[in-house]
Amino acid sequence: MSELVGPVEIVGTGLLGTSIGLACRRAGLEVLLSDSSPEHVRTASGLGAGRPRTDDDRPQLVVVAVPPDHLGTVIATALRETDAVVTDVGSVKSGPLSAVAGEPRAHRYVGSHPMAGSERSGPLAGSGSLFDGRPWAITPHTGSDPDAVELVEELVRLCGAVPVWLTPAEHDRAVARTSHVPHLLASLVAARLADGPENHLALSGQGVRDVTRVAAGDPRLYGQIVSANAEAVLALLGEVRTELDRVIDAVGSGDRTALQGMLEQGVAGTQAIPGKHGGPVRPMRSVWVSVPDHPGELARLLADAVASEVNIEDIRIDHDPGRPVGLVELVVEERRAEHLLTSLESRDWVTHR
Amino acid sequence: MSELVGPVEIVGTGLLGTSIGLACRRAGLEVLLSDSSPEHVRTASGLGAGRPRTDDDRPQLVVVAVPPDHLGTVIATALRETDAVVTDVGSVKSGPLSAVAGEPRAHRYVGSHPMAGSERSGPLAGSGSLFDGRPWAITPHTGSDPDAVELVEELVRLCGAVPVWLTPAEHDRAVARTSHVPHLLASLVAARLADGPENHLALSGQGVRDVTRVAAGDPRLYGQIVSANAEAVLALLGEVRTELDRVIDAVGSGDRTALQGMLEQGVAGTQAIPGKHGGPVRPMRSVWVSVPDHPGELARLLADAVASEVNIEDIRIDHDPGRPVGLVELVVEERRAEHLLTSLESRDWVTHR
Repeated sequence: MSELVGPVEIVGTGLLGTSIGLACRRAGLEVLLSDSSPEHVRTASGLGAGRPRTDDDRPQLVVVAVPPDHLGTVIATALRETDAVVTDVGSVKSGPLSAVAGEPRAHRYVGSHPMAGSERSGPLAGSGSLFDGRPWAITPHTGSDPDAVELVEELVRLCGAVPVWLTPAEHDRAVARTSHVPHLLASLVAARLADGPENHLALSGQGVRDVTRVAAGDPRLYGQIVSANAEAVLALLGEVRTELDRVIDAVGSGDRTALQGMLEQGVAGTQAIPGKHGGPVRPMRSVWVSVPDHPGELARLLADAVASEVNIEDIRIDHDPGRPVGLVELVVEERRAEHLLTSLESRDWVTHR
Repeated sequence: MSELVGPVEIVGTGLLGTSIGLACRRAGLEVLLSDSSPEHVRTASGLGAGRPRTDDDRPQLVVVAVPPDHLGTVIATALRETDAVVTDVGSVKSGPLSAVAGEPRAHRYVGSHPMAGSERSGPLAGSGSLFDGRPWAITPHTGSDPDAVELVEELVRLCGAVPVWLTPAEHDRAVARTSHVPHLLASLVAARLADGPENHLALSGQGVRDVTRVAAGDPRLYGQIVSANAEAVLALLGEVRTELDRVIDAVGSGDRTALQGMLEQGVAGTQAIPGKHGGPVRPMRSVWVSVPDHPGELARLLADAVASEVNIEDIRIDHDPGRPVGLVELVVEERRAEHLLTSLESRDWVTHR
């Protein structure tokens, strides 16, 4: 059982890096800061997010918070130059993983992704409470050490966020749906406003402001993010295109029933978004699974649990190095527990009912 | 010079009708309520929005606030059965106008459209402050009486809203851009969530909630609205489709420059949305125009001013029945005044510099 005691090194002191530094300092951990911009390190340090890293420092955990294009390189360097567990907070998880997949040290890497941000960027926008109650994906790969996974989970909880376990590939499909495609469509709607006469835009109400808000985000950053997740984004954009053609047909031919049916699908989608954390308490149930205590088995269980499409609210690992089999507790909504059990049993896991 | 003294009759006591009744009562006007549902009238009346209309009542102004499909019929009936000025608050303006265009009484009709609403509906959702600081389009047709236009403007100001003058056809193109197409695209994004695995949706952040919020609106109502504005909506959906294909090409071929260029158009669009009313005061300038005092001339000036694409912040009409020519004052942003003057002069209006 590992415990997060620090030091935590943060590479990249922008909005996310600085916010994580502030949250770790609030919890009393030592935080080491580095950034290609010495000015950003000075600013973040001045805000109380940590101190500049020196060559003698030996971090327990390295958090890589650099722009998407540089993630792979910086993660590989951190694995090579330290003995620390390494995570990153990038918006796409398959790319960085493939950059380190060949490394013998890859077992110390566990990707992650906090669903928090701001239209502002840079260290001055940072806040120790940026992650309060927000989802934060943890995406172990098949070679991740269970101890490394636990350490990253501790970081997530220490920041006040809610862990969401996904495999790297499923994470990328999930954010294509919940973030990248909504961003691109918001941008297409906003672009039509750029073409509009000034007196037409005077009619803009709260609706169009909400729809287009995210489209104000940095085009360079979102260009990197979308490009890094091209496959999953393209699959969904293809669906959107098909549905857009159906809307055009329905409006053009005056088929009110078809149009209303599509609008009803939209209503169903808004209802599918889970309530914000802090809403009414839903009844939970624990599902217990025996896991052979050798490398790769925990990650395999996670991948199979994730494949069941049930949201795992918490994972507790009870592994005693003296025993050949550990017990893993998966906490899920009560109404979904039976489905998870059946799904895991069909994949030959030993469950405890 | 007409003055709004009441009674004001409101046909349709849903969210909008009840809210207008409350605002008029707050200003001390007598308000008469009617609705196909006697229960809605009782509820609105109980909230203080007015009293049930009787056969002996003689309204000065009738406000039609019924669902889009019934606007034309109800407006025509109000013109036929009263001597009042008639306006409506429907989301689309060409349809109702064409329904009354043949009527000899059409000079008493002036369309309008408040840009305010709520995810809730019905009289209980009504509020006398629903329109505070919101844009409210006034859309005179070429046969509208100047006195009727002024009476509707008085209603708009009494409700605390900000008048935006547009022709009916331009209004419809404007709301296709600022409301109907954003709604349809939000609905397409939301529909993809309805298809998504539960554990993927756990990553939903504030961004996707904002993008999809309007898609929760009543599919029957929005089906009516979009169908009533099919031509303008289709023109823009065609543009969106072309741009969506370009996004798919750019992501598919890894053309980062093209993708970034499209995202930059989106940023420009978010910046084109005017600041909310109540923001910093912008310097204004009045443009004075001579208008021959016979029917149709004021509407023709309005149409020409609107065609200049300058947003008209205020119109003041100084017409003395004893004189053959009146003076109309158009108030616009100082930086746009020269453009409006040149535009009107090129259409043979006599301006006073």
